[in-house]
Amino acid sequence: MKTADSTARDAVCTALADLMEDYARAIDRDELERWPDFFEASCIYKVTSRENVAAGYPVGVIFADSRAMLQDRVKALRDANIYERQCYRHLIGRPWITHADGESVRAETSFVVVRTMRDGASSLFASGSYHDVLRVREDRLSFVERIVVCDSSRIDTLLALPL
Amino acid sequence: MKTADSTARDAVCTALADLMEDYARAIDRDELERWPDFFEASCIYKVTSRENVAAGYPVGVIFADSRAMLQDRVKALRDANIYERQCYRHLIGRPWITHADGESVRAETSFVVVRTMRDGASSLFASGSYHDVLRVREDRLSFVERIVVCDSSRIDTLLALPL
Amino acid sequence: MKTADSTARDAVCTALADLMEDYARAIDRDELERWPDFFEASCIYKVTSRENVAAGYPVGVIFADSRAMLQDRVKALRDANIYERQCYRHLIGRPWITHADGESVRAETSFVVVRTMRDGASSLFASGSYHDVLRVREDRLSFVERIVVCDSSRIDTLLALPL
Repeated sequence: MKTADSTARDAVCTALADLMEDYARAIDRDELERWPDFFEASCIYKVTSRENVAAGYPVGVIFADSRAMLQDRVKALRDANIYERQCYRHLIGRPWITHADGESVRAETSFVVVRTMRDGASSLFASGSYHDVLRVREDRLSFVERIVVCDSSRIDTLLALPL
Repeated sequence: MKTADSTARDAVCTALADLMEDYARAIDRDELERWPDFFEASCIYKVTSRENVAAGYPVGVIFADSRAMLQDRVKALRDANIYERQCYRHLIGRPWITHADGESVRAETSFVVVRTMRDGASSLFASGSYHDVLRVREDRLSFVERIVVCDSSRIDTLLALPL
Repeated sequence: MKTADSTARDAVCTALADLMEDYARAIDRDELERWPDFFEASCIYKVTSRENVAAGYPVGVIFADSRAMLQDRVKALRDANIYERQCYRHLIGRPWITHADGESVRAETSFVVVRTMRDGASSLFASGSYHDVLRVREDRLSFVERIVVCDSSRIDTLLALPL
């Protein structure tokens, strides 16, 4: 079942899976300053819901179109000291590659996030799918677009950590 | 630690993981019509509980022994419009291969399913293990048998989406 | 993007992922007697919380420094018959390798555990990260140190199954 083509695809899938894990670690380990670096300088980061996407609404609950905006968001989170009061745990599914060539990759990847508050209460915070477009560079992949499609339309992300 | 044998096993594991993800996508993305196509024409699909399996009860809460029965089930779900009122998110563990030769594969794979209702309420719906027998064809794997062993005996699958 | 070095790292990552899954299976399938065998004769197994680690407290809620202690723990669990009243389902993230040479591997791996009680009630039991040091032998990996860092400080592990 193994062809040169599927081997190349496996390599992309492995690189993607590593990237997704590193992205999750940056958030889960409270290394938020690393978060914007996963994105291109000009990029789209959006958090929306499955319902919104199905209805064709372009607007999400969070929207940024540059790495600088993501950096501002991290600064705001640090100033608000929100990051002390809760932490996330991402569990990431296997990336599903919908397109891959030498320059870009498109993939969709399921996720579940567990949130733990400072008092120790843990709960299922979010589930959904990352819809990603990535640029392939010699040594790394970076997000041109990351649309976080949450399964629920009850997304409480005001002043919270990124997904 | 890498031998020709383990490389062949890794290739099967990768193909299996891709299949599991595709199967989950068919359900989670409401592409239910694709679901029966993962199975052989003559097949076993059963949803049961760990307790039932331990007690040696052959009967599960859902049982089908052909692809045609699965297709009927999808039709019933569409007619009941149930699929609009809830959605699932599968998170799939790493397949554990218990047998593999050129013709068939046996594997067990952990899963967790989060269910989101139309009003936005999300909850842990099911956890358990897939016990699978697959036929290996030149270009793909398909289920000869998929036993969904839920951890809980409280399985509410009446008119619900497949697991 | 594929180099000899990254291929070697992928092989370690695959071996690690298999080990993590096997470890989870030993617990989730109630094969607890296999659990101590994943460790070196002289080893560290500790369950602690993120808060404890951040505060620099060395003590965890569970601590063992030999395989023999883990065997004793299994015996105590069997005597208490606790294992009949609940079961776990581990979902394991992708191992993040922080160090690897021919003799040892260090990795961190996210996990989520769902617990199901005998009456069928399922809930999110724990989430966190495994901080592992493993010895590389010709045919297998074994834990020199496994620190289970739970996200929550409310860890109810008294007489419960291992994480």
